[in-house]
Amino acid sequence: MRMAELSERSGVPTATIKYYLREGLLRPGRRINATQAAYDEEHLRRLRLVRALIQVGRMPVAMAREVLVAVEDESLDRHSRIGAAVWSLPDDSPPAASGTAATGPAAPVPDAAVEAAEQQATELLVRLGWSFGSEARAESPAYRRLVEAIAALERSGYPCTLEDLLAYGRSAGELGAVDLDMIERYEPGTRQVEAAVAGTVLYEPVLLSLRRLAQAEESNRRFGEGG
Amino acid sequence: MRMAELSERSGVPTATIKYYLREGLLRPGRRINATQAAYDEEHLRRLRLVRALIQVGRMPVAMAREVLVAVEDESLDRHSRIGAAVWSLPDDSPPAASGTAATGPAAPVPDAAVEAAEQQATELLVRLGWSFGSEARAESPAYRRLVEAIAALERSGYPCTLEDLLAYGRSAGELGAVDLDMIERYEPGTRQVEAAVAGTVLYEPVLLSLRRLAQAEESNRRFGEGG
Repeated sequence: MRMAELSERSGVPTATIKYYLREGLLRPGRRINATQAAYDEEHLRRLRLVRALIQVGRMPVAMAREVLVAVEDESLDRHSRIGAAVWSLPDDSPPAASGTAATGPAAPVPDAAVEAAEQQATELLVRLGWSFGSEARAESPAYRRLVEAIAALERSGYPCTLEDLLAYGRSAGELGAVDLDMIERYEPGTRQVEAAVAGTVLYEPVLLSLRRLAQAEESNRRFGEGG
Repeated sequence: MRMAELSERSGVPTATIKYYLREGLLRPGRRINATQAAYDEEHLRRLRLVRALIQVGRMPVAMAREVLVAVEDESLDRHSRIGAAVWSLPDDSPPAASGTAATGPAAPVPDAAVEAAEQQATELLVRLGWSFGSEARAESPAYRRLVEAIAALERSGYPCTLEDLLAYGRSAGELGAVDLDMIERYEPGTRQVEAAVAGTVLYEPVLLSLRRLAQAEESNRRFGEGG
């Protein structure tokens, strides 16, 4: 297909497609003459993934490029490919540099709250029976983020108990199984790794919005006028 | 306590505390002489909440101020106070204006994907038995975000089924109950509304990081070398 059709089918404006091509997020099409190129279904699929990473996952272009490199690394076995690609996804913590004037200084450096949080996180994962990657865990962005989140609860005056975290962990465990079921609908290989990356990013807002709706529902049940 | 102690106990630098005072996010302390004021435990609690909203929730100051107004609205009953305060929390969708050069144009305006997503979201909430607020739902930020997230899945080429959403919804329902249990540890009133707001914001990174760790665990179980 020509770029116009690629744009129409993806809903991505041609100017944006050209920008992704220049930035190396999308492979060049097959040249058909001096000014035109042809694109195929793989371009379309990749373009949609790039848009998901950048618009929903709010990734800077350089990070999206790194994720795509991990997606295409065929040297790894299936678990490692999915793991490496999802691992490469940045969390969406606030960028360290921007907005200092408006939001005040960034979070403090590691402190007593972080040390206590490390212990709690380790204990949590043991209790959940999640042993995978326990050696490399300290390097994992998701694990670092968990520790920082537990420390933030402590610093905010709302310390969490191990039981609170276990309740969250059990629900997260169910979601992990649902996510892998969804991934297994796709054939093993790059297609499946793409699905893992897209699902990880695209279901985050689904989950957060459903949690808020569930809170409203539960609050109404417990404290509402009918309750 | 003096400002120095407030800073030490909260971990928030005095320059930031002065900034929050100027912006009206924190009530002035009790004047003790021409240059000094005294602060109490309520200031400390409020300061920690403000920091949670701004640093973890990544809220602009103006939004944090709106949330605090909702927290303090004593004219409502208990469910409505919690609901209004949590309702006032912005989602953390990417800001419409910034970063256009780096990330391309913002998401498209409502389209066929959004219309289909509305239907799916409505059906989902009926199946979950979540009837609260069904009339006002279209106005709810969480509901709008859910619809947009379902539409983004469709546009990205990973359409979700009602069963996928139900699996997410059931886990979210469990989390909503856990969240309300945590809120009920605090006495009804402003203290409880603050806890609801803080918990909603502070547990989001806990949840997202645990989901990623659960995915890694599940992927290793299914596809890992030992599996």
